[in-house]
Amino acid sequence: MRKIDAENIEAIALGASVYGTGGGGDPYIGKLIAMNMLRRHGAVRMIDTDSLLDSDLVVPVALVGAPTVAIEKFPSTDQLVGALAALERYMGRKATVVMCAEAGGLNSTIPFAVASEAGLPLLDADLIGRAFPEIQMTVSTLLGIRATPMALCDDKGNTVVMETGTNQYTERFVRSLVGEMGGSACTVLYPMTGAQAKRATIAGSLSRLRAAGETIIDARRDKRDPVEALVELLGARRLFEGKVIDVQRATTGGWNRGMTTLAGFHDDSNSRCCINFQNEFLMAEVDGVTVATTPDLISLLDAETGAPVNAELLRFGLRVTLIGFPCHPQWRTPEGIQLAGPRYFGYDVDYAPVASATDA
Amino acid sequence: MRKIDAENIEAIALGASVYGTGGGGDPYIGKLIAMNMLRRHGAVRMIDTDSLLDSDLVVPVALVGAPTVAIEKFPSTDQLVGALAALERYMGRKATVVMCAEAGGLNSTIPFAVASEAGLPLLDADLIGRAFPEIQMTVSTLLGIRATPMALCDDKGNTVVMETGTNQYTERFVRSLVGEMGGSACTVLYPMTGAQAKRATIAGSLSRLRAAGETIIDARRDKRDPVEALVELLGARRLFEGKVIDVQRATTGGWNRGMTTLAGFHDDSNSRCCINFQNEFLMAEVDGVTVATTPDLISLLDAETGAPVNAELLRFGLRVTLIGFPCHPQWRTPEGIQLAGPRYFGYDVDYAPVASATDA
Repeated sequence: MRKIDAENIEAIALGASVYGTGGGGDPYIGKLIAMNMLRRHGAVRMIDTDSLLDSDLVVPVALVGAPTVAIEKFPSTDQLVGALAALERYMGRKATVVMCAEAGGLNSTIPFAVASEAGLPLLDADLIGRAFPEIQMTVSTLLGIRATPMALCDDKGNTVVMETGTNQYTERFVRSLVGEMGGSACTVLYPMTGAQAKRATIAGSLSRLRAAGETIIDARRDKRDPVEALVELLGARRLFEGKVIDVQRATTGGWNRGMTTLAGFHDDSNSRCCINFQNEFLMAEVDGVTVATTPDLISLLDAETGAPVNAELLRFGLRVTLIGFPCHPQWRTPEGIQLAGPRYFGYDVDYAPVASATDA
Repeated sequence: MRKIDAENIEAIALGASVYGTGGGGDPYIGKLIAMNMLRRHGAVRMIDTDSLLDSDLVVPVALVGAPTVAIEKFPSTDQLVGALAALERYMGRKATVVMCAEAGGLNSTIPFAVASEAGLPLLDADLIGRAFPEIQMTVSTLLGIRATPMALCDDKGNTVVMETGTNQYTERFVRSLVGEMGGSACTVLYPMTGAQAKRATIAGSLSRLRAAGETIIDARRDKRDPVEALVELLGARRLFEGKVIDVQRATTGGWNRGMTTLAGFHDDSNSRCCINFQNEFLMAEVDGVTVATTPDLISLLDAETGAPVNAELLRFGLRVTLIGFPCHPQWRTPEGIQLAGPRYFGYDVDYAPVASATDA
C-alpha cells in the first residue's frame, strides 16, 4: 500500500501520455481534476492486486466519448460518483475498491478523483495495459469477464445501468447513448470480485505509468536525453526520427481518424514514415514497410523534451521520435489480435510484433 | 374487478385499432401473444383505479420501436418479463399492478401477456387515452410524473435501466438504444405508486377499447352499419367518405411518415381529403380546410365492415370513412397542445378541436 498525493499525480499523468499512444485525451485535464480532489479529500491509498480480498467489489471507472468533448465539458464530481451510485444501487452492494479501466490518457488520472471522493482505495492495475477506444477491448474480455452490469452518468445527472449478453453489445449501446448525452459520460464498468480482479486485470499498471513519467522528469532535471531514458525503461525500439510534414485528419463516427507523415531529419533524406491513427496511433510504416501495429504500443515523443505528442496536437514541423514497445502477452494471442489487431480497425496488414530493443 | 379471458381480447384488440388512429402497430400480433398467455396462465384480473392501494407499485408496459419490426421479431415472454425484472431489481421492490402505457394498437394487448405471465392484476387505465409515438407524450408527463426509472429489454436478453432528469431525455435515450437493439424492445416505464396512478392516468381506457370493439362486432352480427354504431358510441364526427386515390410513404428516422389522399365517392365529386401521418394520423384537411388535428383522434374505417385501417395498410381504391373524436381534456390545455399538438410534429397549422357530434 502506498499513498498517492497531488504531487505524485504529475508523474502518473505524464506516463499516461506515453501509454496513451496518441489518444486517450489530454491527461492534463485528468491531472487537474485528480489533484483538486486529492487536495480536498487527502491522499488516495493505492493497493496491489495481492492485497485484494476475494470478496472485494472492484469497480473500474472511466470517461467514455470523445476526449475533445471531455475537455470542453469538464466532468463534475456529481457525474463521477453518480455512475458509481447507480451501479451500486442496481447491484445491491457497495464498491470496496476503485480501479482504472485503462492505462493511458485521461482515464488513468480520473479514477484518483473517484477514489478520493468515495474514500476508497485505488487498485494498481487496469483492464488493458494501454488505452484502447472500444469498451470490449480489454484483457478482461479475453479472460471471460463481462463489462456489465455497468452504469453511465452524464453532465445532466441522467443515469443508465445496463446488463448485456456480450461486451460488444455494451460498446454499441454505450456509443449510441453517449451521442445523446452530448458526446461524453462517466462510466463504471466491468465490476469484479477481488478474486476475479486478481486473475483478469493487468497488475502494476499505475506503477508503470508513474515510472515512465518519473523517468522523463528525472532525465530532464539531470540534463540527460529523456527519449533515451524512456526507451531504456520501456525496452522500446526507436522506429523513426524526423519532422512532421503532413497531417490528415477527419472526425468521423465519433473517431479522430487520420494519418501523419514524417520526413527523416537530414535534408537529403528521402525516408518517410506514415503513422495511421484512430484516436490512438495504430499502425506505422517506414518507406512502405510496416514497423509496428496495434495491439503493440506506438508513441510519438517530442525529440527534444521527450514529451509525448497526442494525435490532436500533431502539427507541421514538429520534430519527433517514434517508438514502439510490446503490448501485454495476452494481446499477442490469436484472440487478442482478433479483438484489437490491425484488421479490426480496418488496416489491411497482419500484426507485426514490435521486437523489444533487447531482441535487436 | 372483472376477469378478462382469451375471448374478451378479441374485442379489445379491435377497439385498440380504432384508438390506434392508424399507428401503434397491428393489434392482431398483440392479440395472439395475449391470447396465448391467457390460455397458458388463465384469465387476467382487470381492476379499476378506485381499487388501487396508495402503496401499490403500478408499472405500465409497452413495446417501443417500429411496429413493423415487432411483427417480424415477435416479442418473447422472456423479453416481456425481462424488462420488469430489471426495473424491480433497480427499484428494490416488486410491482403489484400492471397497466397499459397507451390505449391503442399493439400496446393495449401486450400488457395482458405481461400481467398473465407475472400473475398480477391489470389496471383499467392508460397514460395517454390514445396512442402517441414518443415516450414523453403522456397525460402523466403533463401531471408531473417521471417516465423513469424505466427498463428496456431486447430479444437478445440485453437489459437497460435508466433514470433521467426529463421525460424528453428518456425518449432520446430509448430511441437511440432501440436502434441498436434491432428496432424494437420491451419497456416498463412511468412506475407509479397507487396514489399517483389514481390522479395521473386515464381511467377506464381498456373498457372503452372493449366497448368500441364490441360495438363493431355487435353491429356486424346484427347487420347494422358498424361505422354508424361506432360514431354514435364515440360521439365522433364523420369528416369524409371516399376512396383512397394516392398514398405517399417514407420511412425516415424510425417513423412511418406520409400522406394519403381520398376522393369523394361520387364520380363527379371534386372533393378531396388529405390525411397526414407520422405512424398515427395526425392532421386531416378537406379541400384545403383543416378538419382535425392531433391531439384529437383521427381514425379511418373501412366503409363496409367498420374495420379500422392502419396507415401501413392504405392502398389505392380502399373505400373508407374518416372520423374524428375528441382527445382527453388534459390534451386540450396549452401544455397538452405544446407536447403533442400539430406544431410539435412539424405541421404548420393550429390545433383545431374536433367538435363532438352532439355539438354539431
